[in-house]
Amino acid sequence: MSVNGNNLDRWYSHYAERTAGLTASEVRALFAVASRPEVVSLAGGMPFVSALPPELVTSAMERTMMNRGGVALQYGSGQGVPLLREQILDVMALEGISASVDDVVVTTGSQHALELVAKLFLDPGDVVIAEGPSYVTALVVFRSFQAEVSHVAMDEQGMIPQALRETIANLKAAGRRMKFLYTIPSFQNPAGVTLSWTRRMEILEIARENDILVVEDNPYGLLYFDSPPPHAMRSVDQDGVIYLGTFSKTLAPGLRVGWAVAPHAIREKLVLANEAAVLSPSSFTQLVISEYLSSADWRGQIDIFRGVYQERRDAMLSALQEHLPKLSWTVPTGGFYVWLTLPNYLDSKSMLPRAVKELVAYTPGTAFYADGGGRCNMRLSFCYPSPDFIREGIRRLATVINGELELLQEFSQTGPLTRREIERHYISPPPNLG
Amino acid sequence: MSVNGNNLDRWYSHYAERTAGLTASEVRALFAVASRPEVVSLAGGMPFVSALPPELVTSAMERTMMNRGGVALQYGSGQGVPLLREQILDVMALEGISASVDDVVVTTGSQHALELVAKLFLDPGDVVIAEGPSYVTALVVFRSFQAEVSHVAMDEQGMIPQALRETIANLKAAGRRMKFLYTIPSFQNPAGVTLSWTRRMEILEIARENDILVVEDNPYGLLYFDSPPPHAMRSVDQDGVIYLGTFSKTLAPGLRVGWAVAPHAIREKLVLANEAAVLSPSSFTQLVISEYLSSADWRGQIDIFRGVYQERRDAMLSALQEHLPKLSWTVPTGGFYVWLTLPNYLDSKSMLPRAVKELVAYTPGTAFYADGGGRCNMRLSFCYPSPDFIREGIRRLATVINGELELLQEFSQTGPLTRREIERHYISPPPNLG
Repeated sequence: MSVNGNNLDRWYSHYAERTAGLTASEVRALFAVASRPEVVSLAGGMPFVSALPPELVTSAMERTMMNRGGVALQYGSGQGVPLLREQILDVMALEGISASVDDVVVTTGSQHALELVAKLFLDPGDVVIAEGPSYVTALVVFRSFQAEVSHVAMDEQGMIPQALRETIANLKAAGRRMKFLYTIPSFQNPAGVTLSWTRRMEILEIARENDILVVEDNPYGLLYFDSPPPHAMRSVDQDGVIYLGTFSKTLAPGLRVGWAVAPHAIREKLVLANEAAVLSPSSFTQLVISEYLSSADWRGQIDIFRGVYQERRDAMLSALQEHLPKLSWTVPTGGFYVWLTLPNYLDSKSMLPRAVKELVAYTPGTAFYADGGGRCNMRLSFCYPSPDFIREGIRRLATVINGELELLQEFSQTGPLTRREIERHYISPPPNLG
Repeated sequence: MSVNGNNLDRWYSHYAERTAGLTASEVRALFAVASRPEVVSLAGGMPFVSALPPELVTSAMERTMMNRGGVALQYGSGQGVPLLREQILDVMALEGISASVDDVVVTTGSQHALELVAKLFLDPGDVVIAEGPSYVTALVVFRSFQAEVSHVAMDEQGMIPQALRETIANLKAAGRRMKFLYTIPSFQNPAGVTLSWTRRMEILEIARENDILVVEDNPYGLLYFDSPPPHAMRSVDQDGVIYLGTFSKTLAPGLRVGWAVAPHAIREKLVLANEAAVLSPSSFTQLVISEYLSSADWRGQIDIFRGVYQERRDAMLSALQEHLPKLSWTVPTGGFYVWLTLPNYLDSKSMLPRAVKELVAYTPGTAFYADGGGRCNMRLSFCYPSPDFIREGIRRLATVINGELELLQEFSQTGPLTRREIERHYISPPPNLG
């Protein structure tokens, strides 16, 4: 028997090249930490499913098994259950999207739609353009297909069109292949900001001019607080946008049902890729959701979720104002996340162990960059803990940050910082998130 | 706006190289055909889920929602629900497998485990060794990662070890990279044959000698008729085998729950790949299955399935004997499929439209080869239609085959075939399936 590679893994030499890029994310280790009950976790992105009355799901299941049990338990279409795809059109109409039932492909959560899109488009060395910061598991997926990510800076109105133009020009000058622009325009993960309507139009125009496909990921769009975000980019561009949606945030992630809406030829390939990957998405969970949408007040349920998250957002913002008044953060008008900026001589990743010791967890900003950015940022999630826990979590976080600052002051190689130096570092940096 | 590629697909030039290999399988078109109620379909591989009392599933769901609703509706671990992984150990113990709960990775059906294994191991130009014929959607997955398949011939005892040795020697001589051997040792899809115990040991030895990983796909192993198949290959080789299992055939495919058992280092990478692809498999369907396994007589339910399929297998074999006595076919001792061999001047694919006109469908043998083989073979599935429909389907199939033979006789360029020539072509070819 010959043994290649290292002693720990007999099959080390057998892996595909892409597997080298498949490493544990920074968020991964945090899930273990956050699961300890004494820790206030502002790290994860788990929706607060307790706001969903379980009997709504139970009764949808019971009716599904009574009326369509044979279909629910069987293999289905690789494109998804036709009735559910029709109902998905109703959901998307809320964001201005008009599509045909043929354009929709149901997937195992929208995460799997993203994986399939990446599989269809990404060769080694290709470039994906994405906001900086961007969704951590999107970065993992792109890397797993050996693509590189070029980040585009944001401000409070989302991705900055001029920065996008410059990124594209630089990539073109370097002879790089740009396959698509990945964007979360509404209540972005992790930045919490929303792309304005004017910018949506401008970015679509830039993409068209440069023959770049847009992948619009929209898990949070319906979870707005005071008023809806601008209509989806897909609402005005059928041929240039792949839209990704999900029931994970408006119903429940445990069912793993999301979808893609894609231009016709891409949609056909998505179905084939879906069939290769899973044969068909779960008939059972699709039919349960279909029954839920038919019989329950799903719009009212989304309103309930919106209320829950708005209260938590408010708790987080007021606690930040109370305990860390000199730092800066984004003010999300929907979704799950606040993006906090520390004084630039603090490192959120190296600070995390101390935070966990103080029984609070967050996600370090570097997790959301492919290029090492985000060192002095962190993502704070307000989706899961109660308002009281959020307030306590921010209070603990302030203790940690202030402790770090004191420590730095004491051990600073140039001697103690002056009050003026500290003040300067506390002052909000400019709103540019990049 | 610049338009690349062809007029039908604006994004034609943007696809990854691998996407060229993602084409609709021959089975795909058949699913549309087979769905017409007047057609007796011997084509698909749908389990007969009606043999499962729906109340067993309904009550498992109700208890899941009552006792663990919050967990069921939430994101879960990328490796799968721990309790279910323990129960999977009990299921695998039936086939002689001893493993740790840490070795198991739950996936969205075993299809997705196969996709993840392919993603982890296959670079463009790599070779996968597989039985000839082999599972059609495995071939699709391997092609979708730009790998080639080298087939190894079978006989009634499964893959022929000497043929495997020769295939490996030829590939080595050609300087090809062999990444793994994909095999369905028990009640093979589509051939219906089972690898003997002696050969399992011999093939594991050949794989070890040549540093080739074995991927053992075992969807049908528990669906034996008279006596169990030999123990799984994984039962005697922990380090050299990735084992794939599923609840699709012993419970219901609509739940999309399967699993992989892999050597430690590979298992870690499988979990990362699973997280990238779907974040976590459905907590909901995993917990429903866990509850079912805890509370229902799942072994008794498998016995019920075995009885159903045995009756259908018997119906198919006796109908073949009655209507097509001069052809040859395999005699499966479990699973879903019979592999039929036509006289070698008939083409099962070109005969299919005539068969559909006669209201019977099957899967042409070429679907199960990556190299154009299988022209005069077909797969006949006995899993889904009732015994009466199976008998009627085989009667119709005999009409088609005999009609084709008469047609050939009439239009033969060398004039009508002699009785002796026809007799010769009807006579069973040797048992070698390759």
